Amino acid sequence: MNEHIKLSVIGGDARQYVTAKVLRDAGFDCVTYAMPPGCDDGGEGIPATASLGECLCDTSAVILGVPYSNDGRHINCKSPDCAIAFRTLCERLAPRSLILGGRVTPEAQATAALYGVKLVDYLEREEVNIHNAVPTAEGALAIAMNELPVTICGSRMAVLGYGRIGRVLSERLRALGADVTVAVRKKRDEAWCRLSGFGVVGFDRLASLKGCQVIFNTVPACVLGRRELEAIGAGTLHIDLASKPGGVDMDSARELGCRVIWALSLPGKVAVRTAGEIIAESVISILREEGIA
Amino acid sequence: MNEHIKLSVIGGDARQYVTAKVLRDAGFDCVTYAMPPGCDDGGEGIPATASLGECLCDTSAVILGVPYSNDGRHINCKSPDCAIAFRTLCERLAPRSLILGGRVTPEAQATAALYGVKLVDYLEREEVNIHNAVPTAEGALAIAMNELPVTICGSRMAVLGYGRIGRVLSERLRALGADVTVAVRKKRDEAWCRLSGFGVVGFDRLASLKGCQVIFNTVPACVLGRRELEAIGAGTLHIDLASKPGGVDMDSARELGCRVIWALSLPGKVAVRTAGEIIAESVISILREEGIA
Amino acid sequence: MNEHIKLSVIGGDARQYVTAKVLRDAGFDCVTYAMPPGCDDGGEGIPATASLGECLCDTSAVILGVPYSNDGRHINCKSPDCAIAFRTLCERLAPRSLILGGRVTPEAQATAALYGVKLVDYLEREEVNIHNAVPTAEGALAIAMNELPVTICGSRMAVLGYGRIGRVLSERLRALGADVTVAVRKKRDEAWCRLSGFGVVGFDRLASLKGCQVIFNTVPACVLGRRELEAIGAGTLHIDLASKPGGVDMDSARELGCRVIWALSLPGKVAVRTAGEIIAESVISILREEGIA
Amino acid sequence: MNEHIKLSVIGGDARQYVTAKVLRDAGFDCVTYAMPPGCDDGGEGIPATASLGECLCDTSAVILGVPYSNDGRHINCKSPDCAIAFRTLCERLAPRSLILGGRVTPEAQATAALYGVKLVDYLEREEVNIHNAVPTAEGALAIAMNELPVTICGSRMAVLGYGRIGRVLSERLRALGADVTVAVRKKRDEAWCRLSGFGVVGFDRLASLKGCQVIFNTVPACVLGRRELEAIGAGTLHIDLASKPGGVDMDSARELGCRVIWALSLPGKVAVRTAGEIIAESVISILREEGIA
Repeated sequence: MNEHIKLSVIGGDARQYVTAKVLRDAGFDCVTYAMPPGCDDGGEGIPATASLGECLCDTSAVILGVPYSNDGRHINCKSPDCAIAFRTLCERLAPRSLILGGRVTPEAQATAALYGVKLVDYLEREEVNIHNAVPTAEGALAIAMNELPVTICGSRMAVLGYGRIGRVLSERLRALGADVTVAVRKKRDEAWCRLSGFGVVGFDRLASLKGCQVIFNTVPACVLGRRELEAIGAGTLHIDLASKPGGVDMDSARELGCRVIWALSLPGKVAVRTAGEIIAESVISILREEGIA
Repeated sequence: MNEHIKLSVIGGDARQYVTAKVLRDAGFDCVTYAMPPGCDDGGEGIPATASLGECLCDTSAVILGVPYSNDGRHINCKSPDCAIAFRTLCERLAPRSLILGGRVTPEAQATAALYGVKLVDYLEREEVNIHNAVPTAEGALAIAMNELPVTICGSRMAVLGYGRIGRVLSERLRALGADVTVAVRKKRDEAWCRLSGFGVVGFDRLASLKGCQVIFNTVPACVLGRRELEAIGAGTLHIDLASKPGGVDMDSARELGCRVIWALSLPGKVAVRTAGEIIAESVISILREEGIA
Repeated sequence: MNEHIKLSVIGGDARQYVTAKVLRDAGFDCVTYAMPPGCDDGGEGIPATASLGECLCDTSAVILGVPYSNDGRHINCKSPDCAIAFRTLCERLAPRSLILGGRVTPEAQATAALYGVKLVDYLEREEVNIHNAVPTAEGALAIAMNELPVTICGSRMAVLGYGRIGRVLSERLRALGADVTVAVRKKRDEAWCRLSGFGVVGFDRLASLKGCQVIFNTVPACVLGRRELEAIGAGTLHIDLASKPGGVDMDSARELGCRVIWALSLPGKVAVRTAGEIIAESVISILREEGIA
Repeated sequence: MNEHIKLSVIGGDARQYVTAKVLRDAGFDCVTYAMPPGCDDGGEGIPATASLGECLCDTSAVILGVPYSNDGRHINCKSPDCAIAFRTLCERLAPRSLILGGRVTPEAQATAALYGVKLVDYLEREEVNIHNAVPTAEGALAIAMNELPVTICGSRMAVLGYGRIGRVLSERLRALGADVTVAVRKKRDEAWCRLSGFGVVGFDRLASLKGCQVIFNTVPACVLGRRELEAIGAGTLHIDLASKPGGVDMDSARELGCRVIWALSLPGKVAVRTAGEIIAESVISILREEGIA
């Protein structure tokens, strides 16, 4: 059914190559351009196009990487001899075309709108974030296993925040035999944690986490400041899973000798195929909602 | 109560240093000799003795490493300027003394007997092997997480054997969301696996495991021969947790392009502190049974 | 700290007596009136008052049963020689007084407002509903265990809806070894169910649940109509946990010979003490928010 | 393949009728005689025979109930107008015939041997006992849910013994959110319990179980004597799952006001179909080993 729908996957990293393969397996007429080195193997039957023009010709939608751009001007592209301005891409597409990408900014939305092109963020769907919580949690577990001199089984572990990642991670830690405490803000999260058998602590009492082997932070705000780090001490490993500002006061951590691992973008790093499949599923949902697939 | 019982921890690796600390915390008068480099920090209050003679003087028991000897003649000792023959150690101990070590051989038992010394293997207790199944399983999970391009959640995984490690590992794989099949020989193990919700396969039908992301082997016999490897194909990662001969026909694996990771002695590698604590617990049980503690 | 705060627990059932005891144990000066027969044992030190007047004198808050009223006019009260109009209760309280009760109606709110009294529903807090999901789920499991000729382990089970009860119940069914399918409407719930390892089905395809031992409904809308019941057949037990209209077309079920158990208000029935404790916890939260405790 | 193998199911209870149906579905030529009232419905295609002679004619094996006999002389048979001496049954079978039954006694073995008939107990296979642990555990959970005024989630529960039932039951209690302590005798069981996250207590310290909501006993020896019951007090419900002597000193329990529920033969009571299927599976294994199937 999807056979005559052409999709153009441009740039990005190995995840986008997986996405292209899943889209092809779902029956789309999927072509690539400017794939990262090593992904252009052809052997698996995703045709690489020779030029941007060929890639875009008669396309139904363009799929970019995560993030869609690294510098805000050019599209994210690891291929060395290739620099495509996002503006140029928009210009070369017919009006009402569709571009899908990760971490889309309001500026990019505005640019696309100028050319009558629709730009959609495939990471901004709740089910994508739920699915991505699994590779993030597994990546965090692997870091803990690799770094700790003790087993997770029998250890005291804390998780700050009970959103998607907090929930998936704390359940897995418990399944592996850890004694898990979750820091929560809302009564609702406290109730869920209590009935899941987790210890619960408020964000104003993080000092009580002293003695934990690992504190996993999932909150994108500075919840582990100097006061908390001092109280918790240098015996705890901090694994920060929160994006942008991060949850740890890094200057204080350095001064106090606290070990912090800032683990960003784990899905793409620890489970590239799973990450690419999740993106492909999101892309297909968006194509359906846009009336394309 | 244990204050006047002197224990001499000699050689070994970082696990033995942890063991010494746990024994000290349990109240024993614990001294060390020939600890591996980096463990002789003194700062944690385990006195290092200046000579073997000082270490052995009035001791109640000597604790060696895992294995007790690397060459069958000298005790296992990473310290560079130190070569202590096992025979010499026995000679310098009073008759009826006690030596504890890991992977003790019948030859060593015979040598000890010549000097009227008792040699006990602290790894040969069932509870030690049960406890060690946890760091082994976590180490195996970490390898899988580090190596696979997909998450464990949603993957097909097989575990060959349902002994201690097989049981602990398959439960953890399932807790992480894998679809787990266990290869068993006994009706009893089949029954346990079925009621745990695992798929079950006989060892004569391992070819049906084609499509698994990982096959974890725990059986110390060549269960994955050329025929099985051919049928399963090169798309599966084999993680072999079985000691000595291992469970995979390595020559065939090489020829067929099958990926095999032979992961030996995981407890000491992935969770040195937990491993040292498990040894200490075993040592204390043995000391009690021998009427020393 | 709560010693000089008088709370008046009036009417209701055994849950309210438990609530009174928990409030007393939390330090409140708690009195009762018109407790149900059997609860007035006094032996546990909750003073029963001789008259409504004595009970209300100088009270900080009045706590009624679940529901606050059975007929919309009198407060819920099992004590035979006692009929207290809700309006009378409001009248006898000082303005700005506080009444807490279960399943409060807009009409009751209006009546209370006439007298300047504040009426709060202690069941309408999200954490209360989360906590109540546990006794509801356990009650549903007990019904299934009592009714089925097979074990839950190894059975196919379906749960309609993935709200609080759906989530708690489906996790417990799986923990007991069932093969669980959840019917969901939202992409978000589908994602959570998939990563929890549940089968997922849309509400438009409930016919595919044919063969399930039990279908547990948690949705308060007629999701199992004649068409669905016909397709699913008479071999499945329906346990309906949804309030008011219920989720099963009862007339069709009767005609088609489908077994339906409508299991309402399970918390009070299967775990009266837990239910009373949950209410007490909610009452204390409300008292804090109202500035009383 | 099993079509020309005639099996005769005689007497017993509803489980045996299920067994007959499963054997028929597995292709055996299965007939019944003296089924309990209500099971002789014929509608499901298990032919009832008109006489014992017809039932036994050319049979390959006879299958009796659990137990094979209630009085040691006649076979277990709920059908009112039917009393078949076990000796008569043996007499009417050809030598080298096979009888399968439950709870076979040495006396019955001797009687069968007199007639050259082989008598095998289908319950005395380890996998049967493992499978039966599930309905036993579910039955025990249902009793606890029905009897307790609190939820299992959040309760303190103890399990005495860590054999098959102890292991299955304690895992399910924990999965439902209970805080579980297991009483063990062997170091091995202690190790398994510790790494499963259960509290552990020795049988000489059962007094420490005071405060548990339920103590489930699985040990067929008087482990809860007067001293233990006194120390534990009357606030705990005892559910005794152990056969014959039982684990509770019933006289002391009565005097001390301790509540005891002696829950025998749960599989047949709570999950008759599962119990019959487990027996059928065992029967088929025995027939294979005897060279019949």
